Amino acid sequence: MDCIFCDIIGKKESAEILYENDRVISFLDIRPVNYGHTLVIPKTHYENFLSVPPEEMEALILATQKLSNAIVKSLIPDGFNIVVNNGIAAGQSIFHFHFHIIPRFKSDDFKFRPNLKSYDDGTMKNFAEKIRLAVTT
Amino acid sequence: MDCIFCDIIGKKESAEILYENDRVISFLDIRPVNYGHTLVIPKTHYENFLSVPPEEMEALILATQKLSNAIVKSLIPDGFNIVVNNGIAAGQSIFHFHFHIIPRFKSDDFKFRPNLKSYDDGTMKNFAEKIRLAVTT
Repeated sequence: MDCIFCDIIGKKESAEILYENDRVISFLDIRPVNYGHTLVIPKTHYENFLSVPPEEMEALILATQKLSNAIVKSLIPDGFNIVVNNGIAAGQSIFHFHFHIIPRFKSDDFKFRPNLKSYDDGTMKNFAEKIRLAVTT
Repeated sequence: MDCIFCDIIGKKESAEILYENDRVISFLDIRPVNYGHTLVIPKTHYENFLSVPPEEMEALILATQKLSNAIVKSLIPDGFNIVVNNGIAAGQSIFHFHFHIIPRFKSDDFKFRPNLKSYDDGTMKNFAEKIRLAVTT
């Protein structure tokens, strides 16, 4: 299977590796939104957020927290975003699951100002009921 | 302390609650990017991503995965984003930690096309070294 992240894990492809443990590896994104933009990925290949098993997901989020702390300490950004893109429509381009950590600065050019919508009461209840039904089944 | 999310947890403020366990509660964002936009929060008040303890973080990310699955099953979006905004500069507006789950559709109006940057080799190494130093200390 052709996967650039698996090649980084296997050291067939170079990367600026920031952290590594039994389950997880973290390295700099080579096309950063802001300098210091970091990826945290499982060493086992899982396609997306939904296919990662619980123990791996726990290890990934704790490593993401650890790396976020390191970015805050070392780069002193004004804030940061954690982002997962799941599916092409959501911006996923590499189908090996990864958390993005994006350091943010007051004056940076990464603006995502969504056009926030409103619900009328009926619509909101309707959406909630659909999701609730799917959680419990 | 005045916190709208704590009021939802305490049932002093209404919300379309989707899921709840000992540590975590999930409900619809009343100002959604897309309909079905969901928040997943700890029942204990922690200000942000860095202040959530490990066991709570594990419970939160597993609940976020569970809710993402339910959203995929029930709303059949083309994809979804998981987002954390940490700090005002990153778009955080409520200082009780929360994961966003944003269902995405091919034709939706939530575009965040960042202006991706490049590193020259020296700059990339320099950033990596700063972060690595902060991870290990």
